[in-house]
Amino acid sequence: MTAFFSRTLRIEWGWCDPAGIVFAPRFIDMMSENTVQMFEFAGLPKKRQMRAEMNIAGYPLVDLQARFIFPATYGDNVIIESDAPVFEKSSFTIGHRIRKDGTLCVEGAEKRVWTVFDPSTPSGIKSATVPEDVRRLFET
Amino acid sequence: MTAFFSRTLRIEWGWCDPAGIVFAPRFIDMMSENTVQMFEFAGLPKKRQMRAEMNIAGYPLVDLQARFIFPATYGDNVIIESDAPVFEKSSFTIGHRIRKDGTLCVEGAEKRVWTVFDPSTPSGIKSATVPEDVRRLFET
Amino acid sequence: MTAFFSRTLRIEWGWCDPAGIVFAPRFIDMMSENTVQMFEFAGLPKKRQMRAEMNIAGYPLVDLQARFIFPATYGDNVIIESDAPVFEKSSFTIGHRIRKDGTLCVEGAEKRVWTVFDPSTPSGIKSATVPEDVRRLFET
Amino acid sequence: MTAFFSRTLRIEWGWCDPAGIVFAPRFIDMMSENTVQMFEFAGLPKKRQMRAEMNIAGYPLVDLQARFIFPATYGDNVIIESDAPVFEKSSFTIGHRIRKDGTLCVEGAEKRVWTVFDPSTPSGIKSATVPEDVRRLFET
Repeated sequence: MTAFFSRTLRIEWGWCDPAGIVFAPRFIDMMSENTVQMFEFAGLPKKRQMRAEMNIAGYPLVDLQARFIFPATYGDNVIIESDAPVFEKSSFTIGHRIRKDGTLCVEGAEKRVWTVFDPSTPSGIKSATVPEDVRRLFET
Repeated sequence: MTAFFSRTLRIEWGWCDPAGIVFAPRFIDMMSENTVQMFEFAGLPKKRQMRAEMNIAGYPLVDLQARFIFPATYGDNVIIESDAPVFEKSSFTIGHRIRKDGTLCVEGAEKRVWTVFDPSTPSGIKSATVPEDVRRLFET
Repeated sequence: MTAFFSRTLRIEWGWCDPAGIVFAPRFIDMMSENTVQMFEFAGLPKKRQMRAEMNIAGYPLVDLQARFIFPATYGDNVIIESDAPVFEKSSFTIGHRIRKDGTLCVEGAEKRVWTVFDPSTPSGIKSATVPEDVRRLFET
Repeated sequence: MTAFFSRTLRIEWGWCDPAGIVFAPRFIDMMSENTVQMFEFAGLPKKRQMRAEMNIAGYPLVDLQARFIFPATYGDNVIIESDAPVFEKSSFTIGHRIRKDGTLCVEGAEKRVWTVFDPSTPSGIKSATVPEDVRRLFET
């Protein structure tokens, strides 16, 4: 599968653990931020404008899977690739892959829910159908 | 299922995101640390002694699954429950649950590999059969 | 000086770096969270109620000093002690000390500004005189 | 003063707190990583080679000062500028500045100690005079 969005990152000293390799949860941070940047790359406004100016509360993570195949360490440059979301009604799934010099280090998938503000609910937010114009941004 | 080990934690301001809730990867940090503390609670020496004095390099994460069901926010007290490992030959799986006032916020599972130092390999480490006396520590 | 608030914490594997010791910025996280917890301990409502129900936006950090004297590593239990704030007009300074078995590992000081919501300003917030009843909570 | 090394960074969602701005300790992470990258930029080998192949244990932080002047939020691009170290005998001080669109957000200084492995000491490490050829890398 071809990535819709990718970003390179240099592994920081502070992300690595006493075994000298990336502490696994830091890879989850990387995937999560890729989703934010991919939505903006696709043409949506910055997440803070989505929150402040549109009615969109966000797209919280509801399901996560990841396989850790090969370690990375500080000073390594990795590329984080993310696939276009596969949309369902009010949710979508994004596949991510983290590679170092062509070697697959991590692959994962995030399922997220499209969420809008709704003052009539106890939490102030509710899930909503992903708008058509959002879906269209990822068509190629 | 009854947890083998549990730990309470107060959600910190710095773990929460601009939506005011725990940034999902921080829950993965919590599970990961629970595994470290559960091994020590079961009777194994501190991880740094395992690394320095025994031949054990660690038990790196190879597979992760998590479902995010209910949010938590700063000032909340959560309990992180972890099940005794389900052992295979050189790997094991640990189920984790994070609750707030009885409500299940997150459930997840980590698959990890028992790893020992081996200077004869390129990486200096290799997977190994989980020792019998380690398995026995989790029998009840 | 006697601490007004203290909290013990077990150093997590994920906070330590490839040198095997706490990555220094993690100590700053610890001090920062101590301030949040000390305000609640003193009798102020949880920070999220201060934000939602009172007019208080927070008390952002404006100045930080820290000395790193002795390292700590995963599995260590540290105690984080914080002094009562020394109040000026709209700011205050809090001294923190992190100890391990009586040994001083880190000492630091945070200067913070009392900040309230004010829709008439460009940022929506402004500094304000620390209320008398807040100051009184820390008198002994 | 002119920076010796600078790096741009996009502020991540997960680095921001419920007030919607960068959680202050994350700025300390940024400065700390800039030091690592500046040493490599100056011509020293990657930190992991310094540790594995040379006798250098690292350059742990002993003193930190920072002023937080203006906030940054997710989606912002910041530039982190670092000055050439000012060397003393076995220590050095690095000034850092974090800017957003020309506005100074944070300025700080780190004092660090040059540290080498020494199996004859209890900790296995000791401070050492910064080598001449390291100092020379930062002359202009």
